[in-house]
Amino acid sequence: MSRRVMRTAAPEFDRENANEFSVGVDFGGTNLRVAAYSPKDGVLETVHQTTRLKDGRDAVVSDMCTGIREVIERQSKTRKLKGVGMGSPGPIELPGGLLHDLPNLPGWGGLELRATLEKQLGTTVIIENDANAAALGECFLGRGKTLGIDSLCMMTLGTGVGGGIILHGNILDGMNGFAGEIGHLNIWTDGLACGCGGHGCTEPYASATSVRTHAKLRIAHGDAPGLAAMAAKNPEFTPRDVGVLAESGDADARKIFENLGQALGIALSACVNTLNLPLYLIGGGLLNAWKLFAPAMFNELRSRSYIYRLTEPSAEDLATHRNGKTYVEKAELGGDAGFLGACLLPFTTWEEARR
Amino acid sequence: MSRRVMRTAAPEFDRENANEFSVGVDFGGTNLRVAAYSPKDGVLETVHQTTRLKDGRDAVVSDMCTGIREVIERQSKTRKLKGVGMGSPGPIELPGGLLHDLPNLPGWGGLELRATLEKQLGTTVIIENDANAAALGECFLGRGKTLGIDSLCMMTLGTGVGGGIILHGNILDGMNGFAGEIGHLNIWTDGLACGCGGHGCTEPYASATSVRTHAKLRIAHGDAPGLAAMAAKNPEFTPRDVGVLAESGDADARKIFENLGQALGIALSACVNTLNLPLYLIGGGLLNAWKLFAPAMFNELRSRSYIYRLTEPSAEDLATHRNGKTYVEKAELGGDAGFLGACLLPFTTWEEARR
Repeated sequence: MSRRVMRTAAPEFDRENANEFSVGVDFGGTNLRVAAYSPKDGVLETVHQTTRLKDGRDAVVSDMCTGIREVIERQSKTRKLKGVGMGSPGPIELPGGLLHDLPNLPGWGGLELRATLEKQLGTTVIIENDANAAALGECFLGRGKTLGIDSLCMMTLGTGVGGGIILHGNILDGMNGFAGEIGHLNIWTDGLACGCGGHGCTEPYASATSVRTHAKLRIAHGDAPGLAAMAAKNPEFTPRDVGVLAESGDADARKIFENLGQALGIALSACVNTLNLPLYLIGGGLLNAWKLFAPAMFNELRSRSYIYRLTEPSAEDLATHRNGKTYVEKAELGGDAGFLGACLLPFTTWEEARR
Repeated sequence: MSRRVMRTAAPEFDRENANEFSVGVDFGGTNLRVAAYSPKDGVLETVHQTTRLKDGRDAVVSDMCTGIREVIERQSKTRKLKGVGMGSPGPIELPGGLLHDLPNLPGWGGLELRATLEKQLGTTVIIENDANAAALGECFLGRGKTLGIDSLCMMTLGTGVGGGIILHGNILDGMNGFAGEIGHLNIWTDGLACGCGGHGCTEPYASATSVRTHAKLRIAHGDAPGLAAMAAKNPEFTPRDVGVLAESGDADARKIFENLGQALGIALSACVNTLNLPLYLIGGGLLNAWKLFAPAMFNELRSRSYIYRLTEPSAEDLATHRNGKTYVEKAELGGDAGFLGACLLPFTTWEEARR
């Protein structure tokens, strides 16, 4: 008996004639989204709420359960419930869904999310790290489906940098559910402190949040007039504002996205050299800045990975045959990847492996 | 149809009453080892030869085939041949065994190793990267077997730094056989040039060869009298000589192993954060310096991986229950891991996956 490290797509997954439905929840720090899904008919309905974080975790859990119950009640009239899936911010221990101290969810550490929800709902709940759920969604319902590829690695650039690895349709969870933490790959060994307690990780160099941090650092340095003017006009400037400035040609703003691309390229080189998968997806809020960071990202990846150099797709490969080449592309589902992946979770299994 | 990324242990693997045998070959730059193996009775015989690299690749291939044929002839009298497995230096494209330009095997690039051997031998040959074969050996016949763990990541510190990842007994090959190239994880972004064409990789900081390089760099710097005296006495000094000097208390020699441990810790943190496996093994010729590099390695891993900090085994865990903890340990099989893993290869399959 050995510790399970993968969540497996169950045979029901493709049973398109089944009259079953699942409920998927994308639990984010800002939004709480609940959806109903059927393998046969796709998304049946979605309900969006705001996550009432400041009212405490009991209020949020109560909101979750109310939303889930309503969806179940409506859909149960015509279909049979398979289960509830949820993507949650990590670190979260699987399969039990024990939350550890979360930088973005203070006070939630120690909560047994799965048992708490199952008790209140009286049905099976399957929890996943939100980035893993998004990767599963992209694999079966997004870019992976479009390309016919069932092994991929996805990086989500948001408040942090999340990661998820799918091998032949199965989530690589690792023994505790902590696998795929690509945001904590080493970029600059003596670099900026990271929320994880380490330093020089990918996260402080490639998250959406990091764009603001690096803009402020440049402004403090006193030699970035365009950025300084932007911040003077609006001290609450967003990564998008820095992107607009970069697109207008401001060299300092452009440099921020080039450095971000370089960091992503280093992180991707680690993924390519370790996993040698056919597809790497970049998702999350920063995706609209793709043109600003992608050239530096590909340059860095090319320089650091002979595997990528051996398998870089030609223009012809991009149009036709994909086998054996390494594709780094934009994710397809945007903000929907999380709840779509969560909807698929009840159609997966996590069993102890036997030898 | 999606590109296969894993080599799977076949059901015959555990069929201990089968009257089959396999032949395993460890093809190294210095030694060529051929063994016969039976799942029921273990290693039946081993034949050691020197790899005649300077006589050219045809001579070496001929030696391989002669050695394999002799073993097959002897063992076929009482058992049935399952197939031939070989661990080869990489980069080698799988499953076909196409050799790319090898730093340690000049002139071998472009050889289709599998087809070449199958044609000469008239039997099935399965090729693997040597580090993957060693990891498979440690999993089923070494440390993994001892601990009852079937998912692990192994780093081999030799001329280079090799890596192999086993998930539930299956080799993570990646789509082209290039997965597990842990020797090319980023350590120092602007660091030393690596044989892969990149710079700052693990290999120039943590291979056995790197110990000599760093000793020379310290000597050239002019402030390492102990190392300088060692090199003056024996210009062809080995990593072992540096180890002996370090064990005698020489601060500069000790620092070389501490830096190596730090590099290993950074590489391991990438593996732990990406894979979250129960077991990471260090193998290869440098293993006898474990006491010199391990403390720095564990310190660095602890500081860079919150996953490791959450799952670090206590002294009690080391004695008893292992589930859910992250173990970083010495490999068990020494130089035998490669040919033992090669012997297991004929009992694995690589099939195209269907969706």
